[in-house]
Amino acid sequence: MRIGKWDHDAFVAVVKDFHGHVAPGVIIGGYMVEMARRTLPEGILYDAVSETVQCLPDAIQLLTPCTVGNGWLKVYHFGIYALSLYDKYTGEGTRVRLNVDALDAYPHVRAWFLKEKPKREQEPELLREEIRAAGMDLLQAAPIRIHPDFLVKKGKGVVRRCPRCGEWYPAVLGDLCRPCQGDGPYLAGKE
Amino acid sequence: MRIGKWDHDAFVAVVKDFHGHVAPGVIIGGYMVEMARRTLPEGILYDAVSETVQCLPDAIQLLTPCTVGNGWLKVYHFGIYALSLYDKYTGEGTRVRLNVDALDAYPHVRAWFLKEKPKREQEPELLREEIRAAGMDLLQAAPIRIHPDFLVKKGKGVVRRCPRCGEWYPAVLGDLCRPCQGDGPYLAGKE
Repeated sequence: MRIGKWDHDAFVAVVKDFHGHVAPGVIIGGYMVEMARRTLPEGILYDAVSETVQCLPDAIQLLTPCTVGNGWLKVYHFGIYALSLYDKYTGEGTRVRLNVDALDAYPHVRAWFLKEKPKREQEPELLREEIRAAGMDLLQAAPIRIHPDFLVKKGKGVVRRCPRCGEWYPAVLGDLCRPCQGDGPYLAGKE
Repeated sequence: MRIGKWDHDAFVAVVKDFHGHVAPGVIIGGYMVEMARRTLPEGILYDAVSETVQCLPDAIQLLTPCTVGNGWLKVYHFGIYALSLYDKYTGEGTRVRLNVDALDAYPHVRAWFLKEKPKREQEPELLREEIRAAGMDLLQAAPIRIHPDFLVKKGKGVVRRCPRCGEWYPAVLGDLCRPCQGDGPYLAGKE
């Protein structure tokens, strides 16, 4: 079965190059994107949602025009193994999820996803073979509609200078930039 | 000047393919990544931070092994035009920012970044020529160290079934999955 413009093995090679290793989540994610895309009308402009930060954003970025940096892909930290593609204007589209109820027939996928075994006891070759054999059989699709509030493209508005550190940031975020509000990942300020 | 394995024009073509259009932010971001990477010791494993969701994540994903889906790139919604690359183990690295004080010599970049003119009055060709001519002259680098709390890789822990909708999600997120807590982008529940 094709995944975008690739067959299974070619997609695996593309995943290895972009993602760094052949993660089961990105391969399954490839089938998820493909399944969602096939439900959309030809030629429409669509946006994407990933309900997890793990793996699925990379499948979406490899297989659709939607990336994090162009804003057509929104990534939520829900930890849910599901994604949606939807018409950019109407918000109508399809959500595809891993169908955990179907995993009894795929014990290696089940052990990986539900972490039934520690990683060192899982068998990656058998897991990969199950994923290849299953294709879209692991998945479940349903129509969705995005809430209108999420369809409005928000610009960043006025850019201002942080009075504390001098950095430029969207004024809407507050009187200080977010790192100066204490949200940054750096030790001792930003620099 | 080279950007990763590409020269300027080849990188522009890669950006067009991945990002969908030749966004000034991704091209400048390419020079930012390149500048940060040149400060790192050869052969180390490094992670990345983008301080904005716009454009810079795509430059990082195109030019480094760090992607959103593999977790080596963390994207913050600070709206700040800066990124960092740092040693995955020590947290030591380099932050590169757009040096707004240097933009007087680059009026088209300045008009674009500070939104001094509405988009329809900006001149994209002249903007692109300024970016090409400036290369790293628009940028400012400084050493950073990531807070140890951000170096710890957090697994998602136990996966549980949402008692309301049946979706599987990390138990640490609460008694219900995040969409059932009201955080989802969909109308009328998830499906």
